[in-house]
Amino acid sequence: MKSCTVGEYLLSRLHQSGIDHLFGVPGDYNLRFLDQVINSPDIAWVGCANELNAAYAADGYARCRGAGALLTTFGVGELSVLNGVAGSYAEYLPVVHIVGAPARQNSRSRLMLHHTLGDGDYDHFLRISQEVTAAQAVLTPENAAAEIDRLLQIALHTRRPVYIYLATDVAEVSITPPAAPLSTPQPTDPQIAAAFSRAVELRFAAAKTIALLADFLADRAGLRPALQQFLTEIPMPFATLLMGKSVLPESLDGFAGTYAGAASAGKTQAIIERADVIITLGVRYTDSITAGFTQQIDSDKTIAIDLHDSRTGEDNFSPLPMAQALEIVHQLARRYASGWDLTPPPPPALSHVPSDRLTQSTLWQAMQDFLRPGDIVLADQGTAAFGAAVLRLPEEVTFICQPLWGSIGYTLPAAYGAQIAAPERRVVLLIGDGAAQLTIQELGSMLRDGLKPVIFVLNNSGYTVERAIHGEHQRYNDIAQWNWTQLPGGFSVHNEAQSWRITETAQLVEVMQVIAQTSRLSLVEVILPRMDIPPLLASVSASMSQRNGG
Amino acid sequence: MKSCTVGEYLLSRLHQSGIDHLFGVPGDYNLRFLDQVINSPDIAWVGCANELNAAYAADGYARCRGAGALLTTFGVGELSVLNGVAGSYAEYLPVVHIVGAPARQNSRSRLMLHHTLGDGDYDHFLRISQEVTAAQAVLTPENAAAEIDRLLQIALHTRRPVYIYLATDVAEVSITPPAAPLSTPQPTDPQIAAAFSRAVELRFAAAKTIALLADFLADRAGLRPALQQFLTEIPMPFATLLMGKSVLPESLDGFAGTYAGAASAGKTQAIIERADVIITLGVRYTDSITAGFTQQIDSDKTIAIDLHDSRTGEDNFSPLPMAQALEIVHQLARRYASGWDLTPPPPPALSHVPSDRLTQSTLWQAMQDFLRPGDIVLADQGTAAFGAAVLRLPEEVTFICQPLWGSIGYTLPAAYGAQIAAPERRVVLLIGDGAAQLTIQELGSMLRDGLKPVIFVLNNSGYTVERAIHGEHQRYNDIAQWNWTQLPGGFSVHNEAQSWRITETAQLVEVMQVIAQTSRLSLVEVILPRMDIPPLLASVSASMSQRNGG
Repeated sequence: MKSCTVGEYLLSRLHQSGIDHLFGVPGDYNLRFLDQVINSPDIAWVGCANELNAAYAADGYARCRGAGALLTTFGVGELSVLNGVAGSYAEYLPVVHIVGAPARQNSRSRLMLHHTLGDGDYDHFLRISQEVTAAQAVLTPENAAAEIDRLLQIALHTRRPVYIYLATDVAEVSITPPAAPLSTPQPTDPQIAAAFSRAVELRFAAAKTIALLADFLADRAGLRPALQQFLTEIPMPFATLLMGKSVLPESLDGFAGTYAGAASAGKTQAIIERADVIITLGVRYTDSITAGFTQQIDSDKTIAIDLHDSRTGEDNFSPLPMAQALEIVHQLARRYASGWDLTPPPPPALSHVPSDRLTQSTLWQAMQDFLRPGDIVLADQGTAAFGAAVLRLPEEVTFICQPLWGSIGYTLPAAYGAQIAAPERRVVLLIGDGAAQLTIQELGSMLRDGLKPVIFVLNNSGYTVERAIHGEHQRYNDIAQWNWTQLPGGFSVHNEAQSWRITETAQLVEVMQVIAQTSRLSLVEVILPRMDIPPLLASVSASMSQRNGG
Repeated sequence: MKSCTVGEYLLSRLHQSGIDHLFGVPGDYNLRFLDQVINSPDIAWVGCANELNAAYAADGYARCRGAGALLTTFGVGELSVLNGVAGSYAEYLPVVHIVGAPARQNSRSRLMLHHTLGDGDYDHFLRISQEVTAAQAVLTPENAAAEIDRLLQIALHTRRPVYIYLATDVAEVSITPPAAPLSTPQPTDPQIAAAFSRAVELRFAAAKTIALLADFLADRAGLRPALQQFLTEIPMPFATLLMGKSVLPESLDGFAGTYAGAASAGKTQAIIERADVIITLGVRYTDSITAGFTQQIDSDKTIAIDLHDSRTGEDNFSPLPMAQALEIVHQLARRYASGWDLTPPPPPALSHVPSDRLTQSTLWQAMQDFLRPGDIVLADQGTAAFGAAVLRLPEEVTFICQPLWGSIGYTLPAAYGAQIAAPERRVVLLIGDGAAQLTIQELGSMLRDGLKPVIFVLNNSGYTVERAIHGEHQRYNDIAQWNWTQLPGGFSVHNEAQSWRITETAQLVEVMQVIAQTSRLSLVEVILPRMDIPPLLASVSASMSQRNGG
């Protein structure tokens, strides 16, 4: 590569990592770097209404594109995103967080500048970021090229966020960086792979029934296409946990539902747990998606494939990239499938109680019909995500939720990021009224940019997910009552959105038909009974309530 | 005190610290403690739309009441407030941050619970909080009473936030706490006080002219009434820096304006810097209030009084509480004032360029007439705060801004907190359009609670404060264009607010007259020229731009 500035080099490496957009909020310590962003042919600037929303948007973008990037200013900006970056850390999204910082001579002199704590210590926020990122770097002209490459490699390998401290003057210094494109080595070992292959073969040869259980890390490893091929060719019963929903092709016959341990609907639990061999792919058993660790997965009969290693019984195979492990499993399955009973599981059905009145049951039934192939569906933590667990997703749908980190309000800005990542796809956002209040201003960014997501605000008069856990009648679970359908008109001077307030099932179905025919931002306020709780959420919240009683 | 639960004890100690309200957002790990809050006769729950806004509200409350309190849930909630708590730390506000956390047996077992990073480490967020709070405690039934007292004493003494980790099960355990009320010792030493007195006397005896310069720490020490008495009795010229504006009684003859080093308007700089003796009270010279450290305060002729110590020339006097130092100065001034030239300074005047078109100049002139005694005025970082620097505040006005931490959007939720703290006073909020977008949803909480602040949205089509520093024509300084006057109708189903969009000076004056006669939440969108920059901001931003060039 020819000579360029530190800022330009960073942007070129982001682009090579699959990133075309940078989310954030300007602040005086990042404005000079922002000039370079504006001038960049590769990276587009996406200004957000506030920093936390920008972090959520970058996270949503990373879930669609594989990686994302976020720019804030020093102190105020970077601390505001911390919850969002921590969510990316917990749920394995490589988001590159760039912090525009004061020029070097100011931190050296420990000056009492704005956006510092006034104590001369410029390292407070770097130390904070160490808790929620996989790696950090303070760029200098001397280390910039090496550190940028090191951090991006770590982010892409670990699927975790990283933190780059970019002083305003450093961004503008010219360097002569390496010419080679960014390499992303995946450590591997033929002997380990061979040993894993032998272990899998032993299990496959002895099995009569087999099942596959996948979770979010299979998505993070980019294995969706490989899994679709695998399950199409070898039609074994399969399920995901809620966190990984949509990584497997639910339209195939093998789909057994969303697995949630003892709280799984219908026969899903039995189909997965009773198989002679269970292949798990990138699974984490966390409380909210297992109704409090009710899974009964016998590790002796499990082939557990993780991002960088795999396990069978007591044996660990490391390093072994997930893609390679899946490839081995796929090849061996071809050989042994003829000995397996591959009868398709009974199709999971929505339990449907027809009603004129809108209920969670009629809502999810209508939603099942509304979804179409290729949609990006986001469901916020609460009745939205746990209700959506029962959906059977059409082909090529991406489903986004955040059940481990569980930060309410996350999905609204994440929907913005997802729509920026995939402008040609329809984004469908499902979010509760309590959750949407946290991050509502990003609706303004959607309208500014002419985006056309479909937003369902599930209005059940407050924090129903919390009422389910504790304090059903306590006023701390009430929220301010908003006039939701008026908001698009407030957040845009040229409002072209359409919005409805819906109280009946028939109305909802009609409105969905209108939306399917039009191309405008649509906001549907769906009035739901205050204590109408989807079955999965009822199980999950009962377990949480008991656990909190300690 | 009789036996009570840990939660009840914490609430009683908050109340003894002058706190009657707890701001925050519910989450399942704090719901059981919230039951105790709801049952408390002393502490009222104030639910906010999101956590960062709650932190800002608690900070605004603390600026009016002396201390504030904030409740979040583990992980997601506590990280969302971090920017707000850091602001309280930087600007010396004792905000007690209580985090509702998982029951002890879960953290002991390192369970993969929601709101954790999924790695079994429950201490990430405690370590993060260490960077922005003066003290932290993980409560247990055994240590709760002692730790709660220790933390509140540190908060009240240092005027800094503290962090309390309250596991959901610990909140409900019964303890037998101490019966004595919370003590708040102020270390003092008669010999130190005597030595300080002699040093002051030497300077007072030799002086012909004298001036007083106060800043925000004098407010944090609660010395506003004592200073009013002092300056009424000994009418010496006085000024504050912007950060401490309103700590001194600006309606008195001695008022010399807002001091900003070389960027001070009119004669303010000369009056302060050329006095034979300068008494400074709780002053911090930070970049944004001195136009980049342009102050010329000769330390040899300065009596520098700080929160817990004082200084004259090379001599330090510690420990010496600020109140005691002021009392010594007051008594000695009585004795020596007859030898001083106490001619009042020329009254600082708004530089006023009349215009039909609304400009910064006509806005501030109209605002000067609009303010009335007892108002609480909040001005967001940007043209609002730097423009408001020229105002001469009526009696008993509290002025709130945040120039050191400088987090835009802060004042909107802080106005909510201030109005909760002082329901009988009129709250006037001055905020830019860019800033208001960050935190707008707290307007919904104001409307829900029937509050009636007066809100001026200074709409200059984007981040004018940043355009002034860098990138005047860059699109990163543009924002989404909102329909501001429609928003109150969106954020409330029973909207009783009044709102206007104003483009002319005469209109503004008329609307101000209407507002003065009515008692409803009022939102005035004031359309201002995009690059109309108050003089002080022009100086400050020029210095920042130069510094960022590094």
